[in-house]
Amino acid sequence: MGGVLTVKNYANAKLVEEKVFKDPVHRYIHVRDQVIWDLIGTKEFQRLRRIRQLGTTYLVFHGAEHSRFNHSLGVYEIVRRIVDDVFRGRPEWDESERLLILCAALLHDLGHGPFSHAFENVFHTDHEYFTRRILLEDTEVNAILRKVSEDFPEKVAQVIEKKYPNALVVSLISSQIDADRMDYLQRDAYYTGVSYGHFDMERILRVMRPRKGQVVIKSSGMHAVEDYIMSRYQMYLQVYFHPVSRSAEVLLNNILKRAKQLNKEGYSFKHEPTHFKSFFEKNITLEEYLSLDEYILLTYFQYWMKEEDLILSDLCKRFVNRKLFGYTSMNPEEEPERYEELKTLLVRSGIDIEYYLYHDCTSDLPYDFYRPGKESPRIPIFLEKPNGEIRELSKESFLVDAIAGRIKTDHKVYYPKEILEDKNISVVLKERLQKVLRD
Amino acid sequence: MGGVLTVKNYANAKLVEEKVFKDPVHRYIHVRDQVIWDLIGTKEFQRLRRIRQLGTTYLVFHGAEHSRFNHSLGVYEIVRRIVDDVFRGRPEWDESERLLILCAALLHDLGHGPFSHAFENVFHTDHEYFTRRILLEDTEVNAILRKVSEDFPEKVAQVIEKKYPNALVVSLISSQIDADRMDYLQRDAYYTGVSYGHFDMERILRVMRPRKGQVVIKSSGMHAVEDYIMSRYQMYLQVYFHPVSRSAEVLLNNILKRAKQLNKEGYSFKHEPTHFKSFFEKNITLEEYLSLDEYILLTYFQYWMKEEDLILSDLCKRFVNRKLFGYTSMNPEEEPERYEELKTLLVRSGIDIEYYLYHDCTSDLPYDFYRPGKESPRIPIFLEKPNGEIRELSKESFLVDAIAGRIKTDHKVYYPKEILEDKNISVVLKERLQKVLRD
Amino acid sequence: MGGVLTVKNYANAKLVEEKVFKDPVHRYIHVRDQVIWDLIGTKEFQRLRRIRQLGTTYLVFHGAEHSRFNHSLGVYEIVRRIVDDVFRGRPEWDESERLLILCAALLHDLGHGPFSHAFENVFHTDHEYFTRRILLEDTEVNAILRKVSEDFPEKVAQVIEKKYPNALVVSLISSQIDADRMDYLQRDAYYTGVSYGHFDMERILRVMRPRKGQVVIKSSGMHAVEDYIMSRYQMYLQVYFHPVSRSAEVLLNNILKRAKQLNKEGYSFKHEPTHFKSFFEKNITLEEYLSLDEYILLTYFQYWMKEEDLILSDLCKRFVNRKLFGYTSMNPEEEPERYEELKTLLVRSGIDIEYYLYHDCTSDLPYDFYRPGKESPRIPIFLEKPNGEIRELSKESFLVDAIAGRIKTDHKVYYPKEILEDKNISVVLKERLQKVLRD
Amino acid sequence: MGGVLTVKNYANAKLVEEKVFKDPVHRYIHVRDQVIWDLIGTKEFQRLRRIRQLGTTYLVFHGAEHSRFNHSLGVYEIVRRIVDDVFRGRPEWDESERLLILCAALLHDLGHGPFSHAFENVFHTDHEYFTRRILLEDTEVNAILRKVSEDFPEKVAQVIEKKYPNALVVSLISSQIDADRMDYLQRDAYYTGVSYGHFDMERILRVMRPRKGQVVIKSSGMHAVEDYIMSRYQMYLQVYFHPVSRSAEVLLNNILKRAKQLNKEGYSFKHEPTHFKSFFEKNITLEEYLSLDEYILLTYFQYWMKEEDLILSDLCKRFVNRKLFGYTSMNPEEEPERYEELKTLLVRSGIDIEYYLYHDCTSDLPYDFYRPGKESPRIPIFLEKPNGEIRELSKESFLVDAIAGRIKTDHKVYYPKEILEDKNISVVLKERLQKVLRD
Repeated sequence: MGGVLTVKNYANAKLVEEKVFKDPVHRYIHVRDQVIWDLIGTKEFQRLRRIRQLGTTYLVFHGAEHSRFNHSLGVYEIVRRIVDDVFRGRPEWDESERLLILCAALLHDLGHGPFSHAFENVFHTDHEYFTRRILLEDTEVNAILRKVSEDFPEKVAQVIEKKYPNALVVSLISSQIDADRMDYLQRDAYYTGVSYGHFDMERILRVMRPRKGQVVIKSSGMHAVEDYIMSRYQMYLQVYFHPVSRSAEVLLNNILKRAKQLNKEGYSFKHEPTHFKSFFEKNITLEEYLSLDEYILLTYFQYWMKEEDLILSDLCKRFVNRKLFGYTSMNPEEEPERYEELKTLLVRSGIDIEYYLYHDCTSDLPYDFYRPGKESPRIPIFLEKPNGEIRELSKESFLVDAIAGRIKTDHKVYYPKEILEDKNISVVLKERLQKVLRD
Repeated sequence: MGGVLTVKNYANAKLVEEKVFKDPVHRYIHVRDQVIWDLIGTKEFQRLRRIRQLGTTYLVFHGAEHSRFNHSLGVYEIVRRIVDDVFRGRPEWDESERLLILCAALLHDLGHGPFSHAFENVFHTDHEYFTRRILLEDTEVNAILRKVSEDFPEKVAQVIEKKYPNALVVSLISSQIDADRMDYLQRDAYYTGVSYGHFDMERILRVMRPRKGQVVIKSSGMHAVEDYIMSRYQMYLQVYFHPVSRSAEVLLNNILKRAKQLNKEGYSFKHEPTHFKSFFEKNITLEEYLSLDEYILLTYFQYWMKEEDLILSDLCKRFVNRKLFGYTSMNPEEEPERYEELKTLLVRSGIDIEYYLYHDCTSDLPYDFYRPGKESPRIPIFLEKPNGEIRELSKESFLVDAIAGRIKTDHKVYYPKEILEDKNISVVLKERLQKVLRD
Repeated sequence: MGGVLTVKNYANAKLVEEKVFKDPVHRYIHVRDQVIWDLIGTKEFQRLRRIRQLGTTYLVFHGAEHSRFNHSLGVYEIVRRIVDDVFRGRPEWDESERLLILCAALLHDLGHGPFSHAFENVFHTDHEYFTRRILLEDTEVNAILRKVSEDFPEKVAQVIEKKYPNALVVSLISSQIDADRMDYLQRDAYYTGVSYGHFDMERILRVMRPRKGQVVIKSSGMHAVEDYIMSRYQMYLQVYFHPVSRSAEVLLNNILKRAKQLNKEGYSFKHEPTHFKSFFEKNITLEEYLSLDEYILLTYFQYWMKEEDLILSDLCKRFVNRKLFGYTSMNPEEEPERYEELKTLLVRSGIDIEYYLYHDCTSDLPYDFYRPGKESPRIPIFLEKPNGEIRELSKESFLVDAIAGRIKTDHKVYYPKEILEDKNISVVLKERLQKVLRD
Repeated sequence: MGGVLTVKNYANAKLVEEKVFKDPVHRYIHVRDQVIWDLIGTKEFQRLRRIRQLGTTYLVFHGAEHSRFNHSLGVYEIVRRIVDDVFRGRPEWDESERLLILCAALLHDLGHGPFSHAFENVFHTDHEYFTRRILLEDTEVNAILRKVSEDFPEKVAQVIEKKYPNALVVSLISSQIDADRMDYLQRDAYYTGVSYGHFDMERILRVMRPRKGQVVIKSSGMHAVEDYIMSRYQMYLQVYFHPVSRSAEVLLNNILKRAKQLNKEGYSFKHEPTHFKSFFEKNITLEEYLSLDEYILLTYFQYWMKEEDLILSDLCKRFVNRKLFGYTSMNPEEEPERYEELKTLLVRSGIDIEYYLYHDCTSDLPYDFYRPGKESPRIPIFLEKPNGEIRELSKESFLVDAIAGRIKTDHKVYYPKEILEDKNISVVLKERLQKVLRD
């Protein structure tokens, strides 16, 4: 790969004829740039077809089977419309940043692995770190980016990591109202079929303006932005934090945790976890990382359904056949005695609470919302008034202000609901369990 | 399993509270019957989540990642609306057939395997045969159906196989305008995002009437039916027969064919095709059949990318990384010399035409359309006039008549398009290839 | 009419075949009851076709040309779905109230006149009072209702007036989440084309439950209700309170006010305001009231464009040809000096501020929102928790709570913007005007 | 007005800020050109708000209350997208024609009067002739067009009349697939709520190409065009030719015919038909023509409900209160005896068949379809193949070919259906009527 040279004018090369992808959300996704076309064709980008956008959500909303490939094209398309239809020709916009932001938009999720949240929780990996490695190491994506210029891969990485000097460029994909959010809200709403998630993106795009170091929204578009914030709020509460989806996440988490533990204990797997070895050993090559997708993972789970370790096989069967844990609202910190009693009763029922009891908590902050654990704070939304004054959104919108500082953390405890009907457990024990679990 | 007894009143058992699934196509899918709820929870039905509705189409229309699980729920819902909202209370409708047709609707695709078309082509399996086996052998589905009555599994199988005596029941899921077609046209249009595939289903359902041995459509609804026929026509031409999707099918077909051949030759696989053994040997247990899904298949392909057999590894890399064959319009029967020349030139270029050249032909008959190869003729559409007279649709609609008998068979030849840019092949040879391939 | 007898079983008479109206919002409106069908055919109900649902809004949102006929059918259909699909068979629902609430839903806007708001403001009429008269006096509607029973017209009137003893029945068309609001939000959004106004009505209907004296919403549907409240909030701010629409209302108001004044002064109209005589004299027969619609009104305005009174003719020309007043944000109470200066400057410019200056103020209270001036407080929204506890919405939803008590009154002053470019007015005066008007 | 001078650069003047209209069909309508903005503000263009796009169709599809103002903006917007987004920069497109075609698109329906079809039938006027007069005589529209250049009004008239030398320009609003048709199909489908009328306009626009003297469609878009043709076919059959809408047209026609006859006979109207005088006398000034809109017309009808002439008053009551004629399928030429008998029976029942019997016939030719009576043949649709060959659509599409030459003329006879229940008519007579009318 070292031999790949920067190709003269490759950055500006246009396809003879524009290519279009039919997209249910944006109707069409338009590609004129040779670089973008080539990037889409790489195996690293095609791999995103094998990773679902919403992880386990399809187990609640059966329509949500769409992949990150879908979403990545969508984010690219939104940014393309902003820079080509809205920003082009405006003095504050530097046309030479165009290809950079298009590439960053397209590739921003490149490092995601299967079921990232659970996976990263157990193996302490970081998809942003792997995005950087895919951009900079020996990959098809890197080869293409280097044909633009030697430092282009690094620049793309910086934009995605929010470290690129021109914050205006960064903010297009990393702010409270960036192309990433605008795509996923609409896309996830479309595939799940929920009626939330709709807002007038066309209006928002039309009132976006490039300013030094940031994007502003003309204040005439404030209500469209409020609508977007409300959509986001509803999507988080209704879809992203759905407890049944989190219940499936708990299973995933515990399957991986169990496999890791068994490996540590020297357990002899019938079906060797070859793909996981480097994760167990925390020494992961890029090739190993890229070889792991949801197809591989679900194949392992199907194999492991036949392992002799009863915990691993049971958890895998549960995930594959969708026999999920039940749940109840409970905050162990607020109700320590109730939680302790639950633990005691489960242990007395023969349950290994290490793998069959899980306390999960999540937060919902509609406006300055940060996805659990992973992401650093985002640039807020700024409105520009007709007189040029710039004000942060919550200062202007009483609706947004009302919800901006509000945190509502939801605590749930997950457990195997079948025990309540297990004939081997005494009626008394079951009654006590039922009482402590009653929501 | 032998111990499962028919449960008294299980057939009529209702859930305490109706369950709903959010569905992007039908908005909500409603379940009141305990039997239906239990069937959805079986591992055989959940397995349909791991088989895509449109096979390789997602490689052209990236939104088309939806599974057969989705579609099966949709067919159930349409039938439910017909029997509960339209047929109920009409003298020609026997309410005792209700649960039977609901179960048949839900389970009609149960025997589908991964990428059925290519798979069945290479291994000569038949998804309808396996549907029967899943219904009748030792499965979770069978256990539930038997709780209704001992002969209930057989009856469900008969309805799906179009052999059940009451043809009215059969026709709800197997006629030219059945719930199966009405769901998949709308669903596939929704997920691909194409603007075809829409028709006024609500109107059609409202004018459906049960008659002895068949469903009729009140003639006042003829134009809605015409619109449905036209949608179907467009969906076949634009989506189902898309040549790029067929190109991916060709790869699939040839991967399986190569693996089968290698096995026959005693090739030593690095990654043993354990799941395929029984298919190679034509002695397939139900468990083996059910264990195979698209996740497993794509995992094999990823393993086989590293096989020493260059054909197998290349074809697998092509499929996984979406480096598809090119194609040109060509009918070998009509242009035998052109086809022969193409073969000669490919061989001279070092291509193994057994695996790298493929002639594919398809037909499109909008009205009395049969999906390639697999299905037997369907019951046509009958209109009932106000005076009670019943007329076959094409006798009344000049639009349908105009396209009913028309066949337009499309012939394409698929080949590895990279050879046209291969530096190892002489310019003269490439020019000749280009000439013969020119569309 | 006195001879109309109660027809035996007329209340239960069903059409031989259900009639359907194609409706863009609810897809189809279904009519099975003979009484409903007959009511729709009356001239009083057909008259609603000649009165727009949104008054002058079509001068801002050109799509909003739909009539109250549209909306009335829609409200009927929503109520029909509630009582037939959700309430039927539930112990708290008294099926004998069904026809009553259907009629009340259909007829609730019967007394509306053209551009009700401005009209009622000038002539001190009241559409609710006329609804009662149409129901009870000698009309086609009354004749039909009396065929049900002698006291049926009175009962329908009571439901519409919120005085009927069974508050559950009343609440279906008069509460914070009644069929009236659910129809107009969706309908007005559809015809204007704005992206607000959408919410998941199907979900809300499904979780509505009849309780003693009220409708409750199962708490599982809270988020759908929040979404409805937010839609309503946005529709008020974006559509119903749009200042350009209010500007047209100001013209309307002043045209009527001027005509009234001229009549009082004994002005000799070229085109006699025959239809207005009884309004001027506050002695309105029902026939006179019903003869006035938007067609008649706009015909008068076109005639009056040629009146010699310059104020009347100018205001009419402005309305007919859409040469509306401009506006600026100004609260005379908060800025009394600014307002006084504006008045002074306008007078010095030769403007008759009685007809060319208007202070308009409106309020927006999303949750406990009352349409300006006319309507009494509505029944709030109650959620029913799984344990049967009933809680008012804002106690459960922090989102609704956040906006429930908030009032944001918007003050605007309307004036003829052409003066700023009038060559007959001195530059100094115009500059001072510009300064005081600057928003 | 003679003093209006061509304003330098007015043709190129842009608004400081783009104006947008919210449109339910095209989402937004964008205006940047000062000329277009000024034209929209003229009283002649605003008058189109008072003329419905679909005449009497709202009496069948209650949603169809939209005006020609709506549609005119829509046609403008489609043309704007074609020339600005698709044609701009292509060598075959002459940018200097841009403003001309935008104006022609916006103004193409300017001469339409109320319920044009019936009106023109009775008074032998011609809306195209009046469009020319509005463009060229002393109007606000003319004043604006002349500011562009002295001959600009004439050029706009020529484009609308299909006489402009550059047929490419003409074809954008007058061909088988022009902006006029594309707007009204979608718009009428939207407001009626029917599910027909949808096609992928975005795709069609993207494959339109300017060629010498015509627009061509790249053959890759053929199926989208087929879909458009099918939509059109369904819209004609289901909406435009709906017999109930035609029944209302018959009433309109006969009201006007009766008023004309009464005037001829010297009948003394209680409410003088002032607005009609010039039409009766065939000496129509432009001012008189423009003063007549649907508001004025319906006001006359309401006045005439009280005329002493029983025919006029009855027909007016019928129209205003929607008591329409019934109809039966009957072609007097094919069934002369049946028709004669019907006439005889009606006369014997005391019916004046001059005003109460009407034979109406219409044709439906989907592809080369001409709206009844008024329009000359349109330019057909041409496809351009990849090799540059141009083929007429029906030569390439077997679907279009199948319906292109097909004519299905529908004959209906309209009559007052109440006579079948008239107690004053003998049972024998009614039975004979029933028999002859039986469909």
